[in-house]
Amino acid sequence: MERTLGCCYYPEHWDETIWSSDAQRMAQLGLTWVRIGEFAWSRIEPEPGAFDWDWLDRAIDILGQAGLKVVLGTPTATPPRWVVDKHPDMLAVDAQGQTRGFGSRRHYCFSHSGYLQESRRIVRMLAERYGQNPCVAAWQTDNEYGCHDTVISYSQAAREAFRDWLRVQFPAQEGNAGDIEALNTAWGNVFWSMEYRDFDDIDLPNLTVTEPNPAHALAFRRFSSEQVVRFNRAQVEIIREYTTAPIAHNYMGRVTDFDHFAVGADLEISSWDSYPLGFLEDRVGASEQAQRAYARQGDPDFQAFHHDLYRAVGRAGSNGAKPRLWVMEQQPGPVNWAPYNPAPLPGMVRLWTWEAFAHGAEAVLYFRWRQAPFAQEQLHAGLLRPDSENAPGADEAAQVAIELKNAKNVEIVQSNVGLIFDYAAEWSWNVQPQGQGLSYFGLVFDHYCALRRAGLSVDILPPDATGLEGYDLILAPGMMHMPDPLKEALNNSGAQILIGPRSAARDAHFSIPTPLPPGWNGLDTLVARLETLRPDLPRPLEGGGSVQNWLETLEGTAQPVLSLQDGTTVAVRAGSVTYNGAWLDEAGLDRLVADLCAQAGLEVTVMPEGLRRRDTGAERFWFNYSGQSIDCEAGTVPAAGVLRETLG
Amino acid sequence: MERTLGCCYYPEHWDETIWSSDAQRMAQLGLTWVRIGEFAWSRIEPEPGAFDWDWLDRAIDILGQAGLKVVLGTPTATPPRWVVDKHPDMLAVDAQGQTRGFGSRRHYCFSHSGYLQESRRIVRMLAERYGQNPCVAAWQTDNEYGCHDTVISYSQAAREAFRDWLRVQFPAQEGNAGDIEALNTAWGNVFWSMEYRDFDDIDLPNLTVTEPNPAHALAFRRFSSEQVVRFNRAQVEIIREYTTAPIAHNYMGRVTDFDHFAVGADLEISSWDSYPLGFLEDRVGASEQAQRAYARQGDPDFQAFHHDLYRAVGRAGSNGAKPRLWVMEQQPGPVNWAPYNPAPLPGMVRLWTWEAFAHGAEAVLYFRWRQAPFAQEQLHAGLLRPDSENAPGADEAAQVAIELKNAKNVEIVQSNVGLIFDYAAEWSWNVQPQGQGLSYFGLVFDHYCALRRAGLSVDILPPDATGLEGYDLILAPGMMHMPDPLKEALNNSGAQILIGPRSAARDAHFSIPTPLPPGWNGLDTLVARLETLRPDLPRPLEGGGSVQNWLETLEGTAQPVLSLQDGTTVAVRAGSVTYNGAWLDEAGLDRLVADLCAQAGLEVTVMPEGLRRRDTGAERFWFNYSGQSIDCEAGTVPAAGVLRETLG
Amino acid sequence: MERTLGCCYYPEHWDETIWSSDAQRMAQLGLTWVRIGEFAWSRIEPEPGAFDWDWLDRAIDILGQAGLKVVLGTPTATPPRWVVDKHPDMLAVDAQGQTRGFGSRRHYCFSHSGYLQESRRIVRMLAERYGQNPCVAAWQTDNEYGCHDTVISYSQAAREAFRDWLRVQFPAQEGNAGDIEALNTAWGNVFWSMEYRDFDDIDLPNLTVTEPNPAHALAFRRFSSEQVVRFNRAQVEIIREYTTAPIAHNYMGRVTDFDHFAVGADLEISSWDSYPLGFLEDRVGASEQAQRAYARQGDPDFQAFHHDLYRAVGRAGSNGAKPRLWVMEQQPGPVNWAPYNPAPLPGMVRLWTWEAFAHGAEAVLYFRWRQAPFAQEQLHAGLLRPDSENAPGADEAAQVAIELKNAKNVEIVQSNVGLIFDYAAEWSWNVQPQGQGLSYFGLVFDHYCALRRAGLSVDILPPDATGLEGYDLILAPGMMHMPDPLKEALNNSGAQILIGPRSAARDAHFSIPTPLPPGWNGLDTLVARLETLRPDLPRPLEGGGSVQNWLETLEGTAQPVLSLQDGTTVAVRAGSVTYNGAWLDEAGLDRLVADLCAQAGLEVTVMPEGLRRRDTGAERFWFNYSGQSIDCEAGTVPAAGVLRETLG
Repeated sequence: MERTLGCCYYPEHWDETIWSSDAQRMAQLGLTWVRIGEFAWSRIEPEPGAFDWDWLDRAIDILGQAGLKVVLGTPTATPPRWVVDKHPDMLAVDAQGQTRGFGSRRHYCFSHSGYLQESRRIVRMLAERYGQNPCVAAWQTDNEYGCHDTVISYSQAAREAFRDWLRVQFPAQEGNAGDIEALNTAWGNVFWSMEYRDFDDIDLPNLTVTEPNPAHALAFRRFSSEQVVRFNRAQVEIIREYTTAPIAHNYMGRVTDFDHFAVGADLEISSWDSYPLGFLEDRVGASEQAQRAYARQGDPDFQAFHHDLYRAVGRAGSNGAKPRLWVMEQQPGPVNWAPYNPAPLPGMVRLWTWEAFAHGAEAVLYFRWRQAPFAQEQLHAGLLRPDSENAPGADEAAQVAIELKNAKNVEIVQSNVGLIFDYAAEWSWNVQPQGQGLSYFGLVFDHYCALRRAGLSVDILPPDATGLEGYDLILAPGMMHMPDPLKEALNNSGAQILIGPRSAARDAHFSIPTPLPPGWNGLDTLVARLETLRPDLPRPLEGGGSVQNWLETLEGTAQPVLSLQDGTTVAVRAGSVTYNGAWLDEAGLDRLVADLCAQAGLEVTVMPEGLRRRDTGAERFWFNYSGQSIDCEAGTVPAAGVLRETLG
Repeated sequence: MERTLGCCYYPEHWDETIWSSDAQRMAQLGLTWVRIGEFAWSRIEPEPGAFDWDWLDRAIDILGQAGLKVVLGTPTATPPRWVVDKHPDMLAVDAQGQTRGFGSRRHYCFSHSGYLQESRRIVRMLAERYGQNPCVAAWQTDNEYGCHDTVISYSQAAREAFRDWLRVQFPAQEGNAGDIEALNTAWGNVFWSMEYRDFDDIDLPNLTVTEPNPAHALAFRRFSSEQVVRFNRAQVEIIREYTTAPIAHNYMGRVTDFDHFAVGADLEISSWDSYPLGFLEDRVGASEQAQRAYARQGDPDFQAFHHDLYRAVGRAGSNGAKPRLWVMEQQPGPVNWAPYNPAPLPGMVRLWTWEAFAHGAEAVLYFRWRQAPFAQEQLHAGLLRPDSENAPGADEAAQVAIELKNAKNVEIVQSNVGLIFDYAAEWSWNVQPQGQGLSYFGLVFDHYCALRRAGLSVDILPPDATGLEGYDLILAPGMMHMPDPLKEALNNSGAQILIGPRSAARDAHFSIPTPLPPGWNGLDTLVARLETLRPDLPRPLEGGGSVQNWLETLEGTAQPVLSLQDGTTVAVRAGSVTYNGAWLDEAGLDRLVADLCAQAGLEVTVMPEGLRRRDTGAERFWFNYSGQSIDCEAGTVPAAGVLRETLG
Repeated sequence: MERTLGCCYYPEHWDETIWSSDAQRMAQLGLTWVRIGEFAWSRIEPEPGAFDWDWLDRAIDILGQAGLKVVLGTPTATPPRWVVDKHPDMLAVDAQGQTRGFGSRRHYCFSHSGYLQESRRIVRMLAERYGQNPCVAAWQTDNEYGCHDTVISYSQAAREAFRDWLRVQFPAQEGNAGDIEALNTAWGNVFWSMEYRDFDDIDLPNLTVTEPNPAHALAFRRFSSEQVVRFNRAQVEIIREYTTAPIAHNYMGRVTDFDHFAVGADLEISSWDSYPLGFLEDRVGASEQAQRAYARQGDPDFQAFHHDLYRAVGRAGSNGAKPRLWVMEQQPGPVNWAPYNPAPLPGMVRLWTWEAFAHGAEAVLYFRWRQAPFAQEQLHAGLLRPDSENAPGADEAAQVAIELKNAKNVEIVQSNVGLIFDYAAEWSWNVQPQGQGLSYFGLVFDHYCALRRAGLSVDILPPDATGLEGYDLILAPGMMHMPDPLKEALNNSGAQILIGPRSAARDAHFSIPTPLPPGWNGLDTLVARLETLRPDLPRPLEGGGSVQNWLETLEGTAQPVLSLQDGTTVAVRAGSVTYNGAWLDEAGLDRLVADLCAQAGLEVTVMPEGLRRRDTGAERFWFNYSGQSIDCEAGTVPAAGVLRETLG
């Protein structure tokens, strides 16, 4: 697989006279790809039905003539004002009932059929015109689904679509439009007299007096995710009528409001937008100490996690090849949207780029070519400054481009360790955290970091019970609903399996199953009780480390693996299956991972603070996220630097 | 008085085939009471006017046959969806103007006349059918008035009812519908030109540009409380037509939005729902240190306070007997609604139960029999787990049941110390805290804790100037409006009296009286000025302790009792009346209580941290809320344990 | 200039029988001025069109007979209920779309033409009646524009007026109603397809999915400010038809939502309402440590800053004399609206009064004469208590009155140091802080404090490039848009000039100019990049102090003045112009100020903590904001005291 670089470019923002020199400078810098078009609807169709293609024709032509390949985006994330005037009820509504208006972007509700038709129309026009254009080598649908909390809408359109969706979930029996009794039973609506007599009785689960039924809330989360899938698929189907070029969507980091595996199943390229500093300050919820230590580098595991996650998301090639991973937007300097926006340490832009390659990215595109001097992102750095001088990021990109000349190919191989990520589990924890601030993402990410602190490379796996072969160790913590086929597949995988806490704790409609969870074939343990803990009241483990946040009381005959200092068992094992009933702190997780690796025959190498590694087929990459150089077995890794070691 | 146990049960949640074994297990465990029915409207009347009584007939019959006595609840806290469809404007509206929708519970506005009629109708149907049923030994109206902030509604129904209520408060003179000038004068509406020309000019006091007139806000709080009284009374009047069984309502802890004395005046049983861990984490506002120390036990005074408060609430028996106190819902294990939800320390369920009895409870019912595996409270523990095995709480309940066999009776006697609690004062402080976070509840609770730290048993007294006889010491801190009869009654009570800070500081319509407060007959002191203090700027007292939060400047000839280190007097005394112009910290309050006890001839015993005691007629109970055993004069009290000492 | 005292009085709040003794006591206390009438609309016009002037005639007469001069306020901050009933859509709407209702004050939208007409009508009635009244010696328009966040309204009236305002900003060309293309270009609306086809497409910049275009947001802030100017001017024009008495408005402290220079250009008197304790707790954002240290004194620089700011605001006299500065409301004791409301330290009321005089105030009026026992401000101290006894503030006012007998005159002279304050820059930083909590006010105030710590007296200057002559040092930090004439005027002023960070960083429509900022004639430096910093990650300066919050990367040949410890230049100089690219902490700013003073030939005297000084023509005033006496070169300044030193 060849590794390439690129950038995001907005010809409509600049005087046409500089397009040509821009294109030439991109090529000279060593870029291959240029993404354009995804916010340009008002320039493509300035009046309803009146199209202006000329400028876009010329832009694509100029870029192509410079040897660049174009990724063309559909502009549906930014419908012009006149689209909104035509469909005033297409706007999303927030949980407080407020309409989210025109004036920025992503101002649409995924459930609105009128806007879906407008989207289909503009995508068809675009695909028709450029589907066979030789310069257009890939396509992107829309932009960052879910950014700005836009998956979930409480609009009238969503309400009606949700009711229809529920009718399908609880199909009619004997001629009725849907089986409302089945829904009442599945959700336990007898509780608090919440029983419905008709699907049209069902409102969206916002603005209730106290919390809604969690089954209701989860169903709405599932529905909302499927509306994104439906919206994206509608675009993909049209584009495919006109081209065989691969289609991507650029996912955002830390957005979990829709099932990326389901969207990705329609797309050849799984790409994402990597903003390490923005994520650190704005979204990860790292400790204050970590936010200080990595303020100019980003979290040492956050990018890797997303590379590994999105590498698993996507449509397999016709030959069964793995889906393709890209970074569609790579932070090249300070951004404008985090609470504080420092500049990356020198070297980090290069480090982030190589890290993406090491985790399987084919292409890394920097966002954006030139910093825009106007509008919302005017303080978002580009490769070029507004005055067209190189910003520091451009020099690091150029360095990578040179380095790639001697090392274009990378072979991604299966890792020894698999970690299941289930979007529905994230929604379930959101619906019922039971302890303030607890999330599935947090739990899984804690496990991921522990694996990485042990020097391991990790594959993230979908929750659909496929592709479990060949792993020595598979983790599935916190997956609240685990269908039977997945349980069986894990048991039969041949790997050591770690489940818990909260794995298999609910049925498909958010009820607690009987026998009590986890109900695991071959493992005699059940969760008799659960507690959530104040952050300042961890419970110490015998032998080091602590339980924090979450603690289950286990009953059964399975063999204890970890216990509290008071003797209470917190993790048990039978055969190859380990159930851990506790959310462990770093020291506790490190011990558990070491123990599991011993069981699985995997070697653990404890990573120094800030150092991480990743194995590809032929190389071991070492990434130093710290501000000091670090010595490792392969040599010295400079601060904010990368070391490449050829594997024997 | 016999002490009994019970539980809350929802036959409609379970397959009918297990009702009988459930009933038998309840009886075997030693339970006497079983509360049912309060959320079952959709099963009783699944369609408008179409009733299904059979299941409930059978459930009551099965429970009765097992020897259990049924408490039957009216289901008005959970009107089914079709009721809301019939009366769409019955929903309450929050302070931001948002309608609070269907999908959980308590989705009604107390002022809506249509819903009041629906409530009357369903209550009459229920009372008609079960009023004479021999198994139904008590009734409960609705469920937890005020839970989820449901007393105050800013609906159109509330607006109109408020205007009518004000017309009654300011009655017509010479044929007009109400005396709007009297209202303008009483409220001081000349300020900021807020004068009204008609009662229909008056809006609810939300969404004003800055704060509304405090007189306006307080009137709305009084009105809102009276709407609850009216709603409850309507149910009581109907039930009484059909039965002589006692009627209860299950109050929530820490809910002060309505006057429980006024609601209780219509009810024979004053019962409440005691969730010590939930309250600690969610509502009390304890210090971080206390929340850590008592995370698995609850605050050592919070339950006792509510027992003492609700013991005073209720309708005296026909023979003038004291109202009856119950705990209708007792936490039996972890709950689901606090920020963090740990398990109680072993022993606490038994401790809480005995503490209720020591404070006068006749019956303690655990909530609930079996943990429901579905809907909102699926992570709320029951006596049984969802798989019907005993949870730890069941074993502690069984232990109490055995202990009760030898000690069924308790005699509640008047305490030496009385403490007045006035709901209207709580509203007044809410309306005008003058310092961030200051509340009447907090001030009164601080005094209560100080009395308990001194080893005293306390009676809480209503603010209506009755029942003041026989006390050695009566405290009435912070009661902002004190009617003249109360002042006189206190002066004539023969007890030492403590008032202030802020006692008698306002007239009935929230104006500052002249002469300045407290205007106390026989006490030459007045509050010349008041200050509120930053939490980090307490002012040290001469002799130990500090003033925090609130400090009044006193003028007059009364004798100083406490002073600041700079010599400023903060508390004064004349005869048996002490006025304290400061909110004292723990050390300061302990000093003041010791001094008052010396005046009153009461002995003080300083309680070790976590230990509390309570005297009944024949026994002294010692309760150890700490995690370590504690030696006291009566022996060693185990951690989370109870010691009973027979009084000579 | 003669210095006088006064008070604010509400005859309508009190029984007419005490008006006369009130007036006599005022005169005896030494007061000259009494402000009345500004909230009395409901008493002047109790019914639409039915006026009751008699009481006001008598009140003015009684006050005048006591020798007092009346300041008469227009009552437009408190329209009676019937005005709102007549114009229901006159109410402002908040950013969440909620209408801000009747029931307190300032319940109007500045853009509503119906209310503007009502205001004109009542002002004309008032001016007609009292314009020639000999007792009425000054006028006040409305009350505290902008208090309670009332400048910005998202009403329908505002929406329509904003569109019309934009049509004027982007004037028609060739017969269209306005040049929408010019707006699209100026705002960069091509970004995210935000282009408009008509001015009627433009909504207000609230409730967008993510942030609106900063150009859009800033335009709305400019518009909102101009609506205030328009509203005020309408009143002024009417009053002037009837009188030659000077007209004032009483500005609030820390309100920056409208351009006070623009409002003041229509008014002879620039007055403000000084609440040092309320501001400290509620608005300044001082450190916890400072809030503790000055809880009973107020911030040592906050009042001085506003005196200096508002001294610059106002209409020059016909002879070109400086505008007149008053304090229309001076805090006399505890207030009711801060998070905590302590009493001022004894002496502070006197100190605040003398400080106002030292900074140029002609008159200081205490708010209010007597504490009102009712309504919203019942816990706001007056000179008198509600029982008409003197409160402590009255005694301090009396002391000042006596002191004034020997020292009535003050001569305000130009300072050596000028500091530019630009309201539009404050809005621009609000629109785009780029780092959490960063504000222009904070940056300018930090510079002001540093100048004061150096013992300097400061003139605050408007941003209009006038009056720059005669200064040795002029500072203009953070002024994001600097028109070319201002740049030129600064270059030609003969003073040392300090600009940056962020000075001249945007064009008039919030775009980044090219060449990059600051684009300063004669100074070869440009801001190549900017970062914002976490509060816990300051970057140390070489030589002491640190950069916090904001750090720019500078390029160019100008000479370095300050650098980080890693050698990076943060401030540069060419000739008399210094550009500082960093937000410096106290130590850093002190170093920079010392350096600039050395360049400017100004002597620096480092002030002890809590001590400040201010020079008038003939005197040097020393003010001790601390709680301990302090020795200075002029002698010992008592705690909370004032020392006056005659200048040689």
